[in-house]
Amino acid sequence: MTVIVRSDSDVATPSELTKKMRKDLILLKDYSVEEIDSILDRGDFWADNLNSKISSAPRTVANPVVVNLFFEPSTRTRFSFELAARKLGYHVLNFDAKSSSTAKGETLYDTLRTFEAMGVDTAIIRTSEEGILQEIAPQVNVSLINAGAGANEHPSQALLDLLTIRQEFGRIEGLQVAIIGDVKHSRVANSNVIALSKYGASIRLAGPEQWMPAQVEGDVQITSVDDAIQGADVVMMLRVQNERHALTNTIDNYLESYGLSKTRYAAMKEGAIIMHPAPFNRGIEIDGDLVEKPNSRIYTQVSNGVAIRMAVLELCNKA
Amino acid sequence: MTVIVRSDSDVATPSELTKKMRKDLILLKDYSVEEIDSILDRGDFWADNLNSKISSAPRTVANPVVVNLFFEPSTRTRFSFELAARKLGYHVLNFDAKSSSTAKGETLYDTLRTFEAMGVDTAIIRTSEEGILQEIAPQVNVSLINAGAGANEHPSQALLDLLTIRQEFGRIEGLQVAIIGDVKHSRVANSNVIALSKYGASIRLAGPEQWMPAQVEGDVQITSVDDAIQGADVVMMLRVQNERHALTNTIDNYLESYGLSKTRYAAMKEGAIIMHPAPFNRGIEIDGDLVEKPNSRIYTQVSNGVAIRMAVLELCNKA
Amino acid sequence: MTVIVRSDSDVATPSELTKKMRKDLILLKDYSVEEIDSILDRGDFWADNLNSKISSAPRTVANPVVVNLFFEPSTRTRFSFELAARKLGYHVLNFDAKSSSTAKGETLYDTLRTFEAMGVDTAIIRTSEEGILQEIAPQVNVSLINAGAGANEHPSQALLDLLTIRQEFGRIEGLQVAIIGDVKHSRVANSNVIALSKYGASIRLAGPEQWMPAQVEGDVQITSVDDAIQGADVVMMLRVQNERHALTNTIDNYLESYGLSKTRYAAMKEGAIIMHPAPFNRGIEIDGDLVEKPNSRIYTQVSNGVAIRMAVLELCNKA
Repeated sequence: MTVIVRSDSDVATPSELTKKMRKDLILLKDYSVEEIDSILDRGDFWADNLNSKISSAPRTVANPVVVNLFFEPSTRTRFSFELAARKLGYHVLNFDAKSSSTAKGETLYDTLRTFEAMGVDTAIIRTSEEGILQEIAPQVNVSLINAGAGANEHPSQALLDLLTIRQEFGRIEGLQVAIIGDVKHSRVANSNVIALSKYGASIRLAGPEQWMPAQVEGDVQITSVDDAIQGADVVMMLRVQNERHALTNTIDNYLESYGLSKTRYAAMKEGAIIMHPAPFNRGIEIDGDLVEKPNSRIYTQVSNGVAIRMAVLELCNKA
Repeated sequence: MTVIVRSDSDVATPSELTKKMRKDLILLKDYSVEEIDSILDRGDFWADNLNSKISSAPRTVANPVVVNLFFEPSTRTRFSFELAARKLGYHVLNFDAKSSSTAKGETLYDTLRTFEAMGVDTAIIRTSEEGILQEIAPQVNVSLINAGAGANEHPSQALLDLLTIRQEFGRIEGLQVAIIGDVKHSRVANSNVIALSKYGASIRLAGPEQWMPAQVEGDVQITSVDDAIQGADVVMMLRVQNERHALTNTIDNYLESYGLSKTRYAAMKEGAIIMHPAPFNRGIEIDGDLVEKPNSRIYTQVSNGVAIRMAVLELCNKA
Repeated sequence: MTVIVRSDSDVATPSELTKKMRKDLILLKDYSVEEIDSILDRGDFWADNLNSKISSAPRTVANPVVVNLFFEPSTRTRFSFELAARKLGYHVLNFDAKSSSTAKGETLYDTLRTFEAMGVDTAIIRTSEEGILQEIAPQVNVSLINAGAGANEHPSQALLDLLTIRQEFGRIEGLQVAIIGDVKHSRVANSNVIALSKYGASIRLAGPEQWMPAQVEGDVQITSVDDAIQGADVVMMLRVQNERHALTNTIDNYLESYGLSKTRYAAMKEGAIIMHPAPFNRGIEIDGDLVEKPNSRIYTQVSNGVAIRMAVLELCNKA
């Protein structure tokens, strides 16, 4: 006989945890600071206990089933969610969008209704179609987690970034954050601008002019890369998406022009940290030697990614 | 506290269950009504307990290993089997037929002998080669489950259809079942005709003339779509396999000619149900609005698919 | 509190097991006979208990996570490792090298550092780049297991071969082993020559002249196929890698010229065994009827593959 006893008596399971449950995580802009706080708090808990035997909060079903539906390629995010789910004891199904019935003309709505009927609890979805998740969410009894939607939002990435910043500085309010690179096409940047603004951080965007947003609002400024880094507490470099555009080939020395070079690194404020959503291009948006500097939090972000996704999976639940 | 105790004392494990075990599920035509009944009974049990903590029947090995061997693409059936296996606590290996040794010239027999040596208990196989499973089954000590073989049989689909019909009407005998569409090339239709006939149902086949079988036997008639629907207790629509033939492009208005249109829906007998093996083409073989009508059992079929496959995995066991 | 009770009282967990732990298994040539012995001993234990409920040795982390990183196609080795890991209760992530960030220009070092940050304990890697694993291993806190590196080594294959031979003869020293086929390009052959030599076996290599190594050392001779088989205790046939070169098409009757034909089989010493790393080409390097002869150990090798990989996963651990 195999006995698996999950006793939660040791586990801090604040009643707020269940009270603040929502069904979906699609756009951070629809979440309040209080709601984001409870995800960050739970993420912190998991970051401290990532490899321990502490179990998750009680679930309404015995063995929750999570499906990964990635219509765009991803290693990092998919594995991060998969690991988070496994660590919580959930079943994970990996849907290969290439060999699927979607190729036979099925819509995402119909695919999700089918998973709902199969007993799937949560669908983690990456899609190029902005807006589709918000449209479908109220129609299916499956918890939908946005794992990146077009150039719009990538909420779990912004959450792990918030967690990393909060761990470092104990707060987010009043911090100065530089976001540098292809801001315009980056769902990471967009989600971060939204989330950081909610918390009262001051944001400076920089990069090639073609990659800057047409307009900004709130405490957000578009500056030069050097001005953005000057005085910033957080220097967040974005990945140059070589597969999406050939711009960097036409810019001589992207690193010196717009990247985090050794010279710019030397100009960083004392105590400031480097962040990057990864995968990074060493020698393009960041000097390869800076990736593992003591004040780089790039790998902390990766660890926090698993922790925050455990929190998201716990907190987002279907009825 | 979540306690997952897998004690087998709590579990209804009728001794009939083990007595009626067979090694393989390849063709329903080789199964007796009594044998099918015991699968349906166990399927009913799982349908009632799909998300509960009730464990499966005792197994002869500690952690049975199931391998999915799909040589034709499938989302639904593969996931349904995978979920069924996971819910029973089995290990599941997903074999990617594209990057496999089969590409290096290995035969299915040699692949299965290898899995046997590795300790795999059950192989769930979809192949375009009709007849190969029957040939190999006696030669390997691995339980073989046919997940669709060419245009021949798809037994687990017919079993879940039988379960859905029996749940609805409490019986199968004497019911009138219309099967409409590409009957000739459909393993779903073929398995259903075989299974429904064993139970004494009356079957009417309809669809484009080129898609009707050359001959029928027993209580089976080929009629017009309207005649098939007239008086039917079950209206089972088949998927138009656009990827297999271009016929529907040459038929103006397939839905009005051969599909379940709103007009035909209005002509259905009171209490009759709509079935479809899915994925369905809204607006081709079925009017999109009918998919989720109260008397549609399309999503019930999907749920029953997981339950019946749990039963099949329990009941089919190697020596 | 999570309590996973697996009755460990039945389990022989010699303290030597943990004492002899190493971080990586990259090249057998760097392992001592004593170290290889402890892997073989543990492999023997698992071979005897492959389907039992006996648990593995205690681990330092709750649920070790293993990632399969196969940059060359493989069914057998990947599944064998996956099964081994699952039987030990480890989580397994399967990395699809085709849809991965590596395609986005990430190096193996950066990929492994990311997995390290995610909490992955062990990476099982197949790559065509010889030497890269030795280079990276000291830089990452992830246990690296070589699952085949170019034409260099395939240590877990050699270990399972050693186990199979030791089970048969009770020793390896003094045995005469024929290795026949494409020795030059075979990492299986290379690892076996290294490991068998450490144990004092006498090795004869045979096959087409182009496939023989330029030089040999120790108790290794290059002979004709017939001379190699003459008096050999073990006849180890290598797979003709049709996908790598077209040689066999240009050799009339490869089986009669260089393969294990029925005639050569009849000339084998009494008590000698046939081995093959599989997948085999029936009728090319081995007569199809010989694969399942009573003195063939081909399927025993497959079973031992799972057992030895359980041992390797237990014994190789990151800090």
